[in-house]
Order: sequence, then structure tokens, then C-alpha cells
Amino acid sequence: MASVLQLFRASKKQKIVDMAAAEKPLSSGDKTQDKLQIDELAEWIAESQDILYAQRRHKLLIILQGMDTSGKDGAVRGVFGKIDPLGVRSVAFKAPTPVEKDHDFLWRVHQQVPGNGELTIFNRSHYEDVLITRVHDWIDDKECARRYEHIRSFEKMLSETGTVILKFFLHISSDEQKKRLEERIADPDKHWKFDPNDLEERKYWNDYQRLYAKMIAETDADHAPWYVIPADSKTHRNLAIASIMVETLQKLKLAYPAGNSEYAKLKVV
Amino acid sequence: MASVLQLFRASKKQKIVDMAAAEKPLSSGDKTQDKLQIDELAEWIAESQDILYAQRRHKLLIILQGMDTSGKDGAVRGVFGKIDPLGVRSVAFKAPTPVEKDHDFLWRVHQQVPGNGELTIFNRSHYEDVLITRVHDWIDDKECARRYEHIRSFEKMLSETGTVILKFFLHISSDEQKKRLEERIADPDKHWKFDPNDLEERKYWNDYQRLYAKMIAETDADHAPWYVIPADSKTHRNLAIASIMVETLQKLKLAYPAGNSEYAKLKVV
Repeated sequence: MASVLQLFRASKKQKIVDMAAAEKPLSSGDKTQDKLQIDELAEWIAESQDILYAQRRHKLLIILQGMDTSGKDGAVRGVFGKIDPLGVRSVAFKAPTPVEKDHDFLWRVHQQVPGNGELTIFNRSHYEDVLITRVHDWIDDKECARRYEHIRSFEKMLSETGTVILKFFLHISSDEQKKRLEERIADPDKHWKFDPNDLEERKYWNDYQRLYAKMIAETDADHAPWYVIPADSKTHRNLAIASIMVETLQKLKLAYPAGNSEYAKLKVV
Repeated sequence: MASVLQLFRASKKQKIVDMAAAEKPLSSGDKTQDKLQIDELAEWIAESQDILYAQRRHKLLIILQGMDTSGKDGAVRGVFGKIDPLGVRSVAFKAPTPVEKDHDFLWRVHQQVPGNGELTIFNRSHYEDVLITRVHDWIDDKECARRYEHIRSFEKMLSETGTVILKFFLHISSDEQKKRLEERIADPDKHWKFDPNDLEERKYWNDYQRLYAKMIAETDADHAPWYVIPADSKTHRNLAIASIMVETLQKLKLAYPAGNSEYAKLKVV
């Protein structure tokens, strides 16, 4: 069977818009069956996290990017929801505070990176500083190019100091976003998730798609790969992310540290 | 008059040991006169900090490195002591804590960098991670080379995001260190400053000198210059650092932000 890492790995020359957001290459064709498989994978991921923590050798950083409604929150719940809350930390980066704005754009991000044995999920990240900021011309191409260089150096440093980085771009179609926004508007129980500003951002759809492609071209690397996840189907989105997580964790060859034979001689009095 | 920035700027090919730690090129020849001048410069620096804070455009980062007893604490007091405590922050980096060790070596450092309008002094810094760590073979040359690359990228990023960086290497002679350590041992009031481990580190004197030269060669840059300060004389050390600070601040063309003419119309009731 082909590696799922290869299957979803972004190609530098790829234009995001060329890809079908509705693709479901991993699906069995049966949604119930797919969901059972996600549960199994999520369980396996939870067990692996326990070993990751015990071993304290690797740092695991997951970065989620995507348009509004692309399912970043849903992916965190569906793929990482079985992990002991003690063992996972999800960080949502919002619009920067005044104090954060007074520092370089990586300042608040660097503070949140995982330590040895930790698994941290960035729900949005430093990539917003080359996306929404560029879409609205808050920064120009020259500043954007500088930031890409800083991001590449930063991720290389993280990688060389023991961080395993996985970057997921959740790819939805414009039609699917329309549907999801309409659902949020129609259902009062979903109003808390709806921000009228999302409709404003939607007007920049094409600019965002162009900039996502640039983001991938500028920062995809073997030590910090981008995976493009077709995300019109929520089930397949989680199946794809969970499968990539499992294959990545398997490659780490996680194992509990060796026991200490001296301990057997100890008496608890 | 020649620029003091040029006078003390490290040369990449320089061997530290070639320099006389006892040099006093800025001295008037009269210690009382020199001290008066330091006071004047320190006063000017304090006033400039007030404008720096009001303007909130620049971030100012001072890095102090040097052997034990080279006068890092003394320089902070003598040069920056007249600044309003609200306007200056001195950060002493000690041996890393377990949590700090679980992260990359720049993690704790990045958290402490100045924001807009702030002046921050690093008393020791990320450079310890290529100095004491290398002297004791806790890292090898390959890891050391990686760290130098990370440091160069980090400082370039700080510079490009508005940080003015000044790095001071306080250069003392082996004889002067011996004298100062003996004073600390002889005077009970100085015992709190004495750490028996300083005598152990002193045995690696030549290794440290070689590594300081390498540090300068690897990381001196126009946007993050190293200044080598002859520091056998405490008075001249402060005179040199204060002079470099003043010339650097002058180049920033600091100015209070323009007043708001509308404010004159306001009434306080």
C-alpha cells in the first residue's frame, strides 16, 4: 500500500485550486466503516502519546491551517480527542494583542512550542502572519519574503533541536464553505461559531488560495512537510489526518524507556 | 574624533588574546575626570531611554558576555543605573532549568527580548550555549556549528523586526581575574559573589579565550555587532560601553512623538 505521507504531501509546484477538495482516496466507501477506522487510529495515537511522554525524547508540533469553517476545531476533536488531556495542548492563535504586536511575529509562537515528550497543536499559527496580513496589504511582498525566510529558519531550528513538525492545510471548496456558513447562520446553536467578519474574508477567497499555494511553495520541507488534506468530507478529513499521524509516529519508533532492575530490590515501608 | 563604534568593533580575524585588556584609549588620564564623564553619559542614556519609550519604534537589546569577574554586573550598574527602573529590564541567564532544557536553547531567550520602546540587558545569553557547553564537551563541533547558524538567523530576524542589538565582550586578563577572585575570597562581604566553581572554570581559561574569538568570528554582523571592551580597568570599561551606547542612540535619531494640537481644546471637568 502506498504511503499516506506521500499521498497527501504537498508538491511545491502544486496549485491548490487544481486539487479536488472533495477527493476521498482513503475512504472504504462506507462512512460507518470509515468512522470506526478513525476511532481505532485515534486510540492508537492516544497510546503513542503516552509513550512519547514517557520517553521524553521527541517534541511533536502539529500545525493546522485552512479557511474559516475548514474544520480545524473538528480535526482536533476527531483525531486528538482520545489523548489524555494532560498529554496534549491545543493553542489557538487569534489576532495579536498589543503586547504581542510590540514584538516580532514569532515571539508568541516560540513561547508555545512543545518541550520534550510534549504534543502541541497550533490551531492557526505564524502562517497567519503571511496570509491574512498579506491579503489585506498590511504587509508588502518584501516584508512577506523576509517573514518566509524567518519562518524557514525558525522551523529548521525547531527541527534540529528535536521537534517533529507536521503541517496540515485543510482544503475545502468555495461551495462547501458557503454551505457551512449558511448552516451557521441558520442554526441559532451555531451562532457562537459564526462571525459576520467571516463573510468579509470570504470575499478574498481567490487571494487566499493563491497565498496558500505560495505558503506551501515557500515552506514545504522534509523536516517540516505540508500535507494538503481534501476536507469537504469531515470524515475523510479526519481519516486522512489520523492516518498521517499514525504513519509519522510509527517512523519515530517510540518505546517506553528501559526499566530499572534495581527498583525490584526497593521496599516501600 | 574617531567613532568609538569603529574603535571597539570586533574584527572577524581578531584573536582576543592579541588585545591588551588593560588598554584605555578613551581615558583622559585622570580617573576622577573619567568618572564624571561616565556620569554625564549615563545621564544622557537615561534621558534617551525616556524618548525611546515614548516613541515606541525601536527595541533595544544589549548583550553582555565575559569571564567570571569581568564586570558584567558592574557595567549594568555603572552605565544603565541612572535609567528609571520602569524603563530598563536586566535578565540574568543562569544554568537552564529542567523545563528550559526540555526546549530548544533559544526558547527562554526569545521570551525575554524587548518589545517596542523597551531596553533589555542580557547578562549572559544564548552565547553560553556555544561557550560553557562547548568548553566542557557537552556538545560537539557539529552541534556547535548548528547553533551558530540558529543564532545568526535569530539575530537577523530580531534585527529585521526592529531590534537594535549591541553585543559587548568584556575582555579581562588572566592576571586581573586572579586578583579579583582573590579579593572575593579575602573579603567576607564579597563571599556572596564567590562561587568555588569559578576556580574550576578558570582552569579552562585558554579554551574560553579561543571560543570567544570563534563566537565573534561566527556572529559579528553590522546588524548585531560585537564590541570588545578592554575591561581590566572598571572605570574605562564603563566609559567605553557608555560611549558606544551614546553613539548608537544618537544614530537612532530618537524624538518624542508629535504632540496633538486637538488636546489643547480639551477641558478637564
